Amino acid sequence: MENINITGSTKLTGLLGSPVAHSKSPAMHNEAFRLLGLDYVYLCFDVDENNMESAVEGLRTLGVAGFNCTMPDKIKMWELCDDLSLAAKLIGAVNTVVNQDGKFIGHNTDGIGYMQSVKDAGFDIIGGKMTLMGAGGAASSILVQAAIDGVKEIDVYNRPGTNFDKAQILIDKLNKVTSAKVSLYDLNDETSLKKSLDSSTILTNGTSLGMAPNTYSCVIKDSSFLHPELIVSDIVYNPLETKLMKMSKEIGCPVFNGLYMLLYQGAEAFKLWTGKEMPVNEIKSKFF
Amino acid sequence: MENINITGSTKLTGLLGSPVAHSKSPAMHNEAFRLLGLDYVYLCFDVDENNMESAVEGLRTLGVAGFNCTMPDKIKMWELCDDLSLAAKLIGAVNTVVNQDGKFIGHNTDGIGYMQSVKDAGFDIIGGKMTLMGAGGAASSILVQAAIDGVKEIDVYNRPGTNFDKAQILIDKLNKVTSAKVSLYDLNDETSLKKSLDSSTILTNGTSLGMAPNTYSCVIKDSSFLHPELIVSDIVYNPLETKLMKMSKEIGCPVFNGLYMLLYQGAEAFKLWTGKEMPVNEIKSKFF
Repeated sequence: MENINITGSTKLTGLLGSPVAHSKSPAMHNEAFRLLGLDYVYLCFDVDENNMESAVEGLRTLGVAGFNCTMPDKIKMWELCDDLSLAAKLIGAVNTVVNQDGKFIGHNTDGIGYMQSVKDAGFDIIGGKMTLMGAGGAASSILVQAAIDGVKEIDVYNRPGTNFDKAQILIDKLNKVTSAKVSLYDLNDETSLKKSLDSSTILTNGTSLGMAPNTYSCVIKDSSFLHPELIVSDIVYNPLETKLMKMSKEIGCPVFNGLYMLLYQGAEAFKLWTGKEMPVNEIKSKFF
Repeated sequence: MENINITGSTKLTGLLGSPVAHSKSPAMHNEAFRLLGLDYVYLCFDVDENNMESAVEGLRTLGVAGFNCTMPDKIKMWELCDDLSLAAKLIGAVNTVVNQDGKFIGHNTDGIGYMQSVKDAGFDIIGGKMTLMGAGGAASSILVQAAIDGVKEIDVYNRPGTNFDKAQILIDKLNKVTSAKVSLYDLNDETSLKKSLDSSTILTNGTSLGMAPNTYSCVIKDSSFLHPELIVSDIVYNPLETKLMKMSKEIGCPVFNGLYMLLYQGAEAFKLWTGKEMPVNEIKSKFF
């Protein structure tokens, strides 16, 4: 990066989380500010849940333009917002805050980032069916945005446990407030999973299974569950080709990883803060 | 400026005050960080006294490396510090804060900046006598640092009023804790002023008299008070040559303005935050 010109009126944006030092976000946003000649800067702040309240009040007083939140701060930030987007309200977690004249409006751009990454990969899943693996933070964001955007049917597979009941509550809400038909299944229910995948447009791994160092793990037992027309996407991007992607590619499925979900969640935050489109092609070629 | 490379571990410094948007400090510090390859950034935050507490607690949580305060926040910051340098303690105002493992240590580098600007102009006033006009914020900083650094005698001239009593309290303290002999006079006492200046090494205008747009005003009635050996310095730097400086130059006095006081108060803050010397020659040629 170069030519960031900090003045007395440079506006602050940034990332709260812990750890944050190795985030891609400062590179992405600062370069986009520079490319568009916008007088903003993006910094990382190592802040955990216990310190969120003081950090957030301080950022308000300092006149922050907006900021991102990552683990472990997304849920606490949801509680601290003055108002929420529909998606953020449903997801129960905020990854992007916009300072509107001192009021902090919470958004969740993770799902938007995923849906944009589907388009970017050349696919149209609106009106189609999704099989979504997982119901944690990332998966919930995808689920909510897919339902809002018009994916017609979504079968969610999750491990039994406390998260399962939480997922059921969210799914009940989505069945009420969106036109999507969303159902929850036990991840171990192989018969249902086979049936879901047979009728799906896209399989989305919304869990961290397959992420380094556990690259041997895979959310699908074997390729007998897949069919060649199924789009297979993974939110994991380390490794760039997960075991799931490799297995799917071998039987002819189109595949893509979670790298551009990361890019597009940032691009959406960028747009919320600046009103401008992030120059994604330049950012892709420099950082992705 | 160019090549500021913001990463996930870039440390925040900055300026609190109101207004701050036109400060020279971001240019000066960011360029110095860049020149030395230090991973810091300096931003301005428009924060008034009423918002200081929340801003300061927020900056602590955000892990700020340190920051400057300017009007109207210097006195409130003094109250909010966990510990104070000797000069800051005496002055009753803080312009520089260092974050020492979460403890905020308050300094006042304005007086240090002034004393360095005297040296920079080629003069040695240690052991000499100073006539100081004014007892407000800037003048107090100069007074305290001059007394600490070893100026032997300081005659302070101030307008009668509430500030006068406050100045007397400070002067009583300085006469106790430093070896300087400090006396307070009424600005209208022309006989004493003439006597003070006759025996002084340096005359320091520590008031804003002569600053644009009131460039016609001058802290000294006429040049009959001056003698050609007297160093005449003005904390005002807009205009670069004040009426006081012009009048003094005409009778042969060496003169300098307050521009490098601004530079060196910043250089001292820079050193407190980074442990490194600001590359003042480069900064001078670019911004002063």
